[in-house]
Amino acid sequence: MRLAAIILWAISWSCLPLVALAQEPLPSWNASPRKQAIIDFVKRATTTGTPDFVPPGARIAVFDNDGTLWSEQPMYVQLAFAIDRVKALAPKHPEWKTQMPFSAVLSGDLKSLASSGERGLAELVMATHAGTTTDEFQAIVKEWIATAKHPVYQRPYTECVYQPMLELLQYLRMHEFKTFIVSGGGIEFMRPWVEEVYGIPPEQVIGSSIKVKYELRDGKPVLVRLPEIDFIDDKAGKPVGIHQKIGRRPILAVGNSDGDYEMLEYITAGEGLRMGILVHHTDGEREVAYDRASPFGRLDKGLANAAGLGWQIIDMRSDWKQVFPAKR
Amino acid sequence: MRLAAIILWAISWSCLPLVALAQEPLPSWNASPRKQAIIDFVKRATTTGTPDFVPPGARIAVFDNDGTLWSEQPMYVQLAFAIDRVKALAPKHPEWKTQMPFSAVLSGDLKSLASSGERGLAELVMATHAGTTTDEFQAIVKEWIATAKHPVYQRPYTECVYQPMLELLQYLRMHEFKTFIVSGGGIEFMRPWVEEVYGIPPEQVIGSSIKVKYELRDGKPVLVRLPEIDFIDDKAGKPVGIHQKIGRRPILAVGNSDGDYEMLEYITAGEGLRMGILVHHTDGEREVAYDRASPFGRLDKGLANAAGLGWQIIDMRSDWKQVFPAKR
Repeated sequence: MRLAAIILWAISWSCLPLVALAQEPLPSWNASPRKQAIIDFVKRATTTGTPDFVPPGARIAVFDNDGTLWSEQPMYVQLAFAIDRVKALAPKHPEWKTQMPFSAVLSGDLKSLASSGERGLAELVMATHAGTTTDEFQAIVKEWIATAKHPVYQRPYTECVYQPMLELLQYLRMHEFKTFIVSGGGIEFMRPWVEEVYGIPPEQVIGSSIKVKYELRDGKPVLVRLPEIDFIDDKAGKPVGIHQKIGRRPILAVGNSDGDYEMLEYITAGEGLRMGILVHHTDGEREVAYDRASPFGRLDKGLANAAGLGWQIIDMRSDWKQVFPAKR
Repeated sequence: MRLAAIILWAISWSCLPLVALAQEPLPSWNASPRKQAIIDFVKRATTTGTPDFVPPGARIAVFDNDGTLWSEQPMYVQLAFAIDRVKALAPKHPEWKTQMPFSAVLSGDLKSLASSGERGLAELVMATHAGTTTDEFQAIVKEWIATAKHPVYQRPYTECVYQPMLELLQYLRMHEFKTFIVSGGGIEFMRPWVEEVYGIPPEQVIGSSIKVKYELRDGKPVLVRLPEIDFIDDKAGKPVGIHQKIGRRPILAVGNSDGDYEMLEYITAGEGLRMGILVHHTDGEREVAYDRASPFGRLDKGLANAAGLGWQIIDMRSDWKQVFPAKR
């Protein structure tokens, strides 16, 4: 080994990310103007001495979860969780047999469940997500997510995540971006597993939440989950959640539905280098093709206005070589 | 230069923190059982292969701000800010001349102001902290904090921070701790300056907040600050704020008043290695000696129960070589 090689080895050994940088970025993305736009954006943000340069601390990227990082069809994963919880808790609630929306869940009548609307879904979430301590709820989520399977792909839900998005998250972090989830889904439904699956720690997750209350039980401090909405992190709630939890405006936002519209609008209206991305679910073969008419992840206003606002629309069918990770 | 020296140089050049580790830790702290307990705690948390080892991601430390990281006497800094804002806004509010608590502020009658109680202070904060956009409020705070001076020390408030605490923050981060502020103070009053002063980025600040609303003004997205409480991050609110914003239980909590009691109780009751620290303001010469009788930063229950709960009580007078940073 020559001296220069030894020095390089010593440096690279202590700075592994530098080695990873040499690999081809975003391997599951086909060459396209969208892929090129992402790579150009990251290059501009990280090139010192240019007007577009963004210091590492301000390189904040926010990602929606349902339909952006993982599948939201045939229904939100959290709804599948709530349905399983209703079934598990039913023996203690004989009244649910005749009480909507629980009766619809127990009889498998998803159409009636859907017709119970937001109010019905909120009741479902309250009944199944409240009443425990935060530690107990975390254990319930961990067990469910480790065992439940996606009804179509017959794989754990945590494998129904989008491989190209896993690569994008990693690519951004390699360039000193801090990656956050900003989801309409429940924050405590995501935190127990997102670090392992996406590499995003619990403190970088923003989501909808119910209130919790601090109390002592047998002298031991616990936080009890209350049946009361704390925050809905959807639509105009997303910029609010970002402001309250992050406190500065991210420079990159990735979403897939009109629930992400205000988030992208807020982020891309900021000064300096900005990027907004919408994932368009166009792949009826490898996943599900849906947009304007879908009850989950409806995308209408975003499709209509993206071009005028300079947002990138990812065409899943043509832009992604692979949708889900290879089976283990 | 011999080969081994070159390799060491190359590694250390690319891993500067390793060099810093070689310096004496916490130089402004006198040798004491408290200083030793902190060093032992960090050593135990970071020594792999032992039962006390804590992986870097879980090395989360939370710090109160007022009275823990900076001076809270003769009054909370944010109250001084609110008073200055009342004076600045008074020409637009002739009714304040005869309306409590504003009239007390304008006539300099701090005793009447104090007697207006929490309700009066809340009114003061609402009137002076709401009504602007978040960007406007940030600019107001930045200007004020850059120009206002502490009435006793005649230095900018950002220099009335505790040098030993700056060193503790840095020492923890050097050992891959993530440091957070968890303060009863307003989150938007802290975020504009804490990164520069404490090295804590805005997204690692938890505090009290008012509600904000997303709207378009002339087609431009803004967040408007509303005169409505969103969250009070004090007492039993602190563990709640920690749970909602961080999502896992920190292993180290540092505070100075009974407002931090539940935070320390919650953190130190967790499993595994834990540490709770209270700063006791015992130094009437270099700062202010106060505890049980103080209107700001009252410390009573904490003093009474700390020993039984295994919390460390820092004696400012004897434990700290230096209180404030050297003048620039």
